[in-house]
Amino acid sequence: MHPAVQAHTDPLMPPFRPGPTLLVHGGVGPYEAEFEEPRRAGLARAAEAAREVLAADGTALDAVVRAVTVLEDDPVFNAGRGSVLNAAGEVETDAAVMDGASGNAGAVAGVQGIVHPVLLARAVLDDGRAVLLVGRGAEGFAEERGLERCDPRSLIVETQRAALSRHHRGTVGAVALDRTGHLAAATSTGGLTGKLVGRVGDTPLIGCGTYADRHVAVSATGDGESVVRLVLAHRLALRYAEGRDLTAAVRDAADLFRETQPGILGLIAVSAAGEIVARSLPGTHLLVARWSVGEPEVTSAPND
Amino acid sequence: MHPAVQAHTDPLMPPFRPGPTLLVHGGVGPYEAEFEEPRRAGLARAAEAAREVLAADGTALDAVVRAVTVLEDDPVFNAGRGSVLNAAGEVETDAAVMDGASGNAGAVAGVQGIVHPVLLARAVLDDGRAVLLVGRGAEGFAEERGLERCDPRSLIVETQRAALSRHHRGTVGAVALDRTGHLAAATSTGGLTGKLVGRVGDTPLIGCGTYADRHVAVSATGDGESVVRLVLAHRLALRYAEGRDLTAAVRDAADLFRETQPGILGLIAVSAAGEIVARSLPGTHLLVARWSVGEPEVTSAPND
Repeated sequence: MHPAVQAHTDPLMPPFRPGPTLLVHGGVGPYEAEFEEPRRAGLARAAEAAREVLAADGTALDAVVRAVTVLEDDPVFNAGRGSVLNAAGEVETDAAVMDGASGNAGAVAGVQGIVHPVLLARAVLDDGRAVLLVGRGAEGFAEERGLERCDPRSLIVETQRAALSRHHRGTVGAVALDRTGHLAAATSTGGLTGKLVGRVGDTPLIGCGTYADRHVAVSATGDGESVVRLVLAHRLALRYAEGRDLTAAVRDAADLFRETQPGILGLIAVSAAGEIVARSLPGTHLLVARWSVGEPEVTSAPND
Repeated sequence: MHPAVQAHTDPLMPPFRPGPTLLVHGGVGPYEAEFEEPRRAGLARAAEAAREVLAADGTALDAVVRAVTVLEDDPVFNAGRGSVLNAAGEVETDAAVMDGASGNAGAVAGVQGIVHPVLLARAVLDDGRAVLLVGRGAEGFAEERGLERCDPRSLIVETQRAALSRHHRGTVGAVALDRTGHLAAATSTGGLTGKLVGRVGDTPLIGCGTYADRHVAVSATGDGESVVRLVLAHRLALRYAEGRDLTAAVRDAADLFRETQPGILGLIAVSAAGEIVARSLPGTHLLVARWSVGEPEVTSAPND
């Protein structure tokens, strides 16, 4: 049982209230020495930007969106600028955000020429009429809302094109707990190198790559189709809600993925009790930045 | 405990093997007298077509796709021909299919000019490279695969336009169990009348409007955003897997929806034990066709 449950069941103990907590990832894949340093630096910048939000009593929702926005600007990650190219040589991006406190969510998929897909997902959430907008409809919505648009080709980073074509993952994501105990998750990606035009992976699908409720917030990365078939973030969340600790819930989800699905996986999660857990499959590398006190720390997730 | 569980735990009993079973729905909404008869007739035709597949030892996957294909052709339902119009006065359709035996799925969203969206979803499943294709990419994939295409305007049924504009639901779906014990689910829709261009609801999202595994197959209909926020079909499936009977799992899902979300809901589900359950919320009407022996029977789902 985690600390919050103990506290609430013992009337002599004051309620346990964990402080703001944050976990950010930059995608899972093989270890690639040449990208290690810029990725560590990018994650540190994203975590610092989100830390500032949380430290100023901002919401978890604002914090995860802030972290992902910074990573979308960074060409070393496969999201926003620097996204991989689809089979037609174009960038099509996906993003989602979910607010655990309200259960509201917003997502976009297959959008072109949007500088910050996560801000468009946030606009869909705030608008409230839809949860998921795709393609030209999502782009028209961005136009209406005055979101920053660009020539779709400007998101292609020429100096990264050759290198990025070797990566097929690099999705970014963030989960956070704020001072009021609310959770949120956000995820953003350019998808899979050479993907079919119009292919949507797990990232923008609520319950698959992105999920948050009152107990836990989850962001997943890896082989999207495999994550979707298991509805993995939601599966992890329901297992956690049954009373298991977060480490076990994340390990169970990773084990089920490994036993039943092809491909690789990275998971990050934070609970309302302030637990943070990150994990990737054996032989893979998931770099994360975490923060709860002091300075954000960049580290590799366990993958045993 | 349901019969299959009892049989498998008693070595003296032969394994219980339920026969092929089928449940088809035509959308949830207020009772509308003028559509009752054509909807009953349409559901009976769809169930009969799927019954023929199952009776000839066809797969659950083939059966649910067959039922939904018949309903997409029928202008009285909000799927394929007869779909409602979005905010731009156009038809954009969504569909998904999931094979419980393999855990594979295929889905399309925001597609135009496709006569049978469920067949396109099936083609995505069979292709295997993606789970979800959207918009122009999905339409290009249909072109490659030689699926039947049409002028997008030909899916608009002029004589239904005025009437359909009063409905905002009418999604169709089917779940089936075949002789080998395999389950499948399929769902297809034109979405919400006046929806934002590019809006995608629960129908094509695996775990939200459509889900199947080795234990249960589920198809949902109603207010899509509310279904998505709860990842409802997957939630129902995990509750069922915990060992509860299907009636209780469906009721729990409907109760949670009613307590936490705006809007209306219809659910149909079939288990590997041969249980079939359909339910809608109080004050709403969900017409279903069911079959396990004899002739398919069209009836209203409980809504108490």
